[in-house]
Amino acid sequence: MTAGQKKRVLVTGAEGTIGTAIRKYLGDRYELSALTREPVDFPSHVADIADLDAIQPAFEGMDAVIHMAASAAVETPWDDILHNNLIGTRNVFEAAHRAGVERVVFASSNHAIGMYEIDGAPSIHELDDPRVYDHSAELRPDSLYGVSKVFGEALGRYYLERFGLKVYNLRIGSVRAEDDPRSEAVTASSPALMDLTVEQRLERMRATWLSQRDCTHLISRCLDVEDVDWAVVYGISNNPRQFWDISHARELLGYDPQDSAPE
Amino acid sequence: MTAGQKKRVLVTGAEGTIGTAIRKYLGDRYELSALTREPVDFPSHVADIADLDAIQPAFEGMDAVIHMAASAAVETPWDDILHNNLIGTRNVFEAAHRAGVERVVFASSNHAIGMYEIDGAPSIHELDDPRVYDHSAELRPDSLYGVSKVFGEALGRYYLERFGLKVYNLRIGSVRAEDDPRSEAVTASSPALMDLTVEQRLERMRATWLSQRDCTHLISRCLDVEDVDWAVVYGISNNPRQFWDISHARELLGYDPQDSAPE
Repeated sequence: MTAGQKKRVLVTGAEGTIGTAIRKYLGDRYELSALTREPVDFPSHVADIADLDAIQPAFEGMDAVIHMAASAAVETPWDDILHNNLIGTRNVFEAAHRAGVERVVFASSNHAIGMYEIDGAPSIHELDDPRVYDHSAELRPDSLYGVSKVFGEALGRYYLERFGLKVYNLRIGSVRAEDDPRSEAVTASSPALMDLTVEQRLERMRATWLSQRDCTHLISRCLDVEDVDWAVVYGISNNPRQFWDISHARELLGYDPQDSAPE
Repeated sequence: MTAGQKKRVLVTGAEGTIGTAIRKYLGDRYELSALTREPVDFPSHVADIADLDAIQPAFEGMDAVIHMAASAAVETPWDDILHNNLIGTRNVFEAAHRAGVERVVFASSNHAIGMYEIDGAPSIHELDDPRVYDHSAELRPDSLYGVSKVFGEALGRYYLERFGLKVYNLRIGSVRAEDDPRSEAVTASSPALMDLTVEQRLERMRATWLSQRDCTHLISRCLDVEDVDWAVVYGISNNPRQFWDISHARELLGYDPQDSAPE
């Protein structure tokens, strides 16, 4: 890349909620292209992420990859986890490495340590609860989905240390298509939290919400940061209650969230 | 299991080096059976570990499982890692859970944190080097093999926390068929260490050796320990140099190694 040129960034899972936000918020800042399973209204390479040979061409000439493609439901069954999250994520790292891509932003998940929340709910969501978990918390996945994110982080570490690929792992909170922290009343991310009342779900969202603006800002920090080649950080807005640490993201990446869920 | 009866223990990978040692040292103490790919001279259920339905019958009625089956070469390529170490390990945990098995001893590996050694070699092997890594060390796999062991540990944690399956992860050092710490002169566990001289390889083995007696003692502690439902411990003998911590195994499991590599 020569000075002044936009970075060329491949987005996997560009058709998803965060992928859509990336196109909206970062489309002017980077030269985005997409790797998708189905054709979308966007420059895209259509292939199954489980097919390394088929996806490889999409990585050629890229400066960075934002890897969002995955089965994202917490209770995704094993066969889909295997196909999309394990094989798919390995293929993305391998294709990025083969193409000489500089960095990968990996959509990891708080579900890599989800058992802390399940153990602590619902009181962990309250404003005066003191518990905070950072990137050094012992891994406690709450699901096969969470296990797949631990796998992805470990794989990224391997590609960093053996091949020099820079990797930024985002344990993302709650990003919503409607971009509204009061919309959690009708959804819950984990069956273990399904017993929460509507009020309790709003309290949870007050802690876990990540606005699309803050989410894409965090991603752009990963794309632009110099002198940092590895990160495991949580992605939430500057919410009134935070049980996942964002001080590490602030210090390491210059993350500076502008939004906050209402008290 | 009623009092006085031997525990029924299924061993996967019973045809391997450690599996053979288990049969030799623990065959009188437990009622062992084997899950193998090829028929062996031992009570065994023959099936491909990647086929959940085919392996399930081997788990019925078992009290414990020792899961050793894996592609064990550090530089195993992805397709074999996927088939044997990822799919296979998931199937073992799932089959154990479905059969109501109480505990799984999982052959993890020091390669889950292998980059510390690669960074530190060869001086890390010397007697006066102070570096020691314990179970809380940040994960730094040195290979896809190491990544697969991180995956296995995370999966075990999930089965513990969601289903109550007790899991003991052994990050095993160097167990050799000839059971001799001076035999490392002709082998090396990792290509990253292939440049070591014969003398340096012996120095490494002085730190990483695990005798078959100590290995099977450690496994038996995992099979017998009460009031501990999760462990990540290193398995080395009481060697003159130790850069993987065994104090945690001593305290948590009552591990008491009897052997030591010579100075």
